[in-house]
Amino acid sequence: MKEQPKSRHRTLYRVIYGDTDTMGFAYYANYLRWFEIGRTEMFRSLGLSYHSIEERGIFLPVAEARCKYRSPVRYDDLLVIETALQKGVKAGLTFVYRILQEKDASCAAEGCTRHPFMDKAGKVVRPPDFVRKVLKDSLFV
Amino acid sequence: MKEQPKSRHRTLYRVIYGDTDTMGFAYYANYLRWFEIGRTEMFRSLGLSYHSIEERGIFLPVAEARCKYRSPVRYDDLLVIETALQKGVKAGLTFVYRILQEKDASCAAEGCTRHPFMDKAGKVVRPPDFVRKVLKDSLFV
Amino acid sequence: MKEQPKSRHRTLYRVIYGDTDTMGFAYYANYLRWFEIGRTEMFRSLGLSYHSIEERGIFLPVAEARCKYRSPVRYDDLLVIETALQKGVKAGLTFVYRILQEKDASCAAEGCTRHPFMDKAGKVVRPPDFVRKVLKDSLFV
Amino acid sequence: MKEQPKSRHRTLYRVIYGDTDTMGFAYYANYLRWFEIGRTEMFRSLGLSYHSIEERGIFLPVAEARCKYRSPVRYDDLLVIETALQKGVKAGLTFVYRILQEKDASCAAEGCTRHPFMDKAGKVVRPPDFVRKVLKDSLFV
Repeated sequence: MKEQPKSRHRTLYRVIYGDTDTMGFAYYANYLRWFEIGRTEMFRSLGLSYHSIEERGIFLPVAEARCKYRSPVRYDDLLVIETALQKGVKAGLTFVYRILQEKDASCAAEGCTRHPFMDKAGKVVRPPDFVRKVLKDSLFV
Repeated sequence: MKEQPKSRHRTLYRVIYGDTDTMGFAYYANYLRWFEIGRTEMFRSLGLSYHSIEERGIFLPVAEARCKYRSPVRYDDLLVIETALQKGVKAGLTFVYRILQEKDASCAAEGCTRHPFMDKAGKVVRPPDFVRKVLKDSLFV
Repeated sequence: MKEQPKSRHRTLYRVIYGDTDTMGFAYYANYLRWFEIGRTEMFRSLGLSYHSIEERGIFLPVAEARCKYRSPVRYDDLLVIETALQKGVKAGLTFVYRILQEKDASCAAEGCTRHPFMDKAGKVVRPPDFVRKVLKDSLFV
Repeated sequence: MKEQPKSRHRTLYRVIYGDTDTMGFAYYANYLRWFEIGRTEMFRSLGLSYHSIEERGIFLPVAEARCKYRSPVRYDDLLVIETALQKGVKAGLTFVYRILQEKDASCAAEGCTRHPFMDKAGKVVRPPDFVRKVLKDSLFV
């Protein structure tokens, strides 16, 4: 995850009181909310909102999530959520994320989420063409 | 809300890190989660879970919520969530809550939530008989 | 709250999965998170971040919160959080909020939060001059 | 993680509306809240609350979290949070968790969190004796 391709999607997030805990840092579960923001805004930037994917009967539930917490995130920090896709994944999609401090680009956390493609009945399906078409090679790292 | 009838429903809640914020107190939005626990467990104690009310096609969405924050709640505090119903409400139900410290019964917060009865189509309906039947007079304050 | 002065502060918020609940709507507690975003960004737009107020030893804890839920908010809705200050409040500050759908400016919710000014010791204090100075008359409704 | 030793700590959790999302399932970030409940109650059951560990100047921040989501969790489900410690970890503690449906003991999710021991200055320290003393062998899997 060292190299940082220009195509990696980026979106900003401002940490609120509701994200923090009594230790003075952002609560560890909330990073997974930021990962969600990252993958949702990546899809939107490709012209295919995740909402519209669902409207076509395709779902991407989370099968696995991981996060490594590198350095503290505090109240009012402005974060960059970087999102990309992992190369070589055969079924579903694996998103990889980095949470950076906007002020100095230091890495606060990194993680990933793995998602199968599912239809309305909850059955795992192959990646639909209308999704694959928008996933540019440059998004894969 | 001074008098405290014996019939007021009580349930316990332990404050976790995820409930607190960087000021060292419980984050103000999370009290509304506790109110939800209070009214849900009150229904369950009456032998009619809120889940089973929904399964019969009746919903109680929140139309209004209020909370007064009296004294700080901190990490690991053991709270008593007290729930009752407000007398004289003609449409829907208004729940009233008190959040007490278990150790000394001091009042940390009090509030209320107002709920219409709705059917599946989102239309406001009269209180169904199967709900009214379980609401004992002693629950109303 | 009918009239809508041009000076009311506005900030955008996109509803994520983590904000919604199984009824298909945004969970009622999360509106209080959006209120926090509203008042924080209003302060920032005045050139005085809430964070910097705290760094000067002044805190604005929430003493009371209210919200009326007008119409459903759903996943991926783009919201406008409108924030202003209530006129005639003598101690502390009372913020008033409206949550609007960005697409048609319909009102999804409105509410308020009341905050005393407190020092580090938790003692209620008078509004500090450095805060009062930035609060323009036009922000009060 | 197939074998299930009797010493694994167990605590119950009831899923509320605030835990669920519009897909009808529990939101994936909230499992990390349940993991926190699991490790906190495990400590309490050993007669050493996590709160009291902090009061002695020792902190266990989260360095890494993982969760595999096995089967859906829904509103009002009663869950068993199973917590144990991973054997052979040299620095800090690694907790392993299973989220089970109470009704049929089916596994809804499993995961782990890794924690260094830190002092007040944020420096990583060796496991303090007063903590090691209470960690029975039977808790390690």
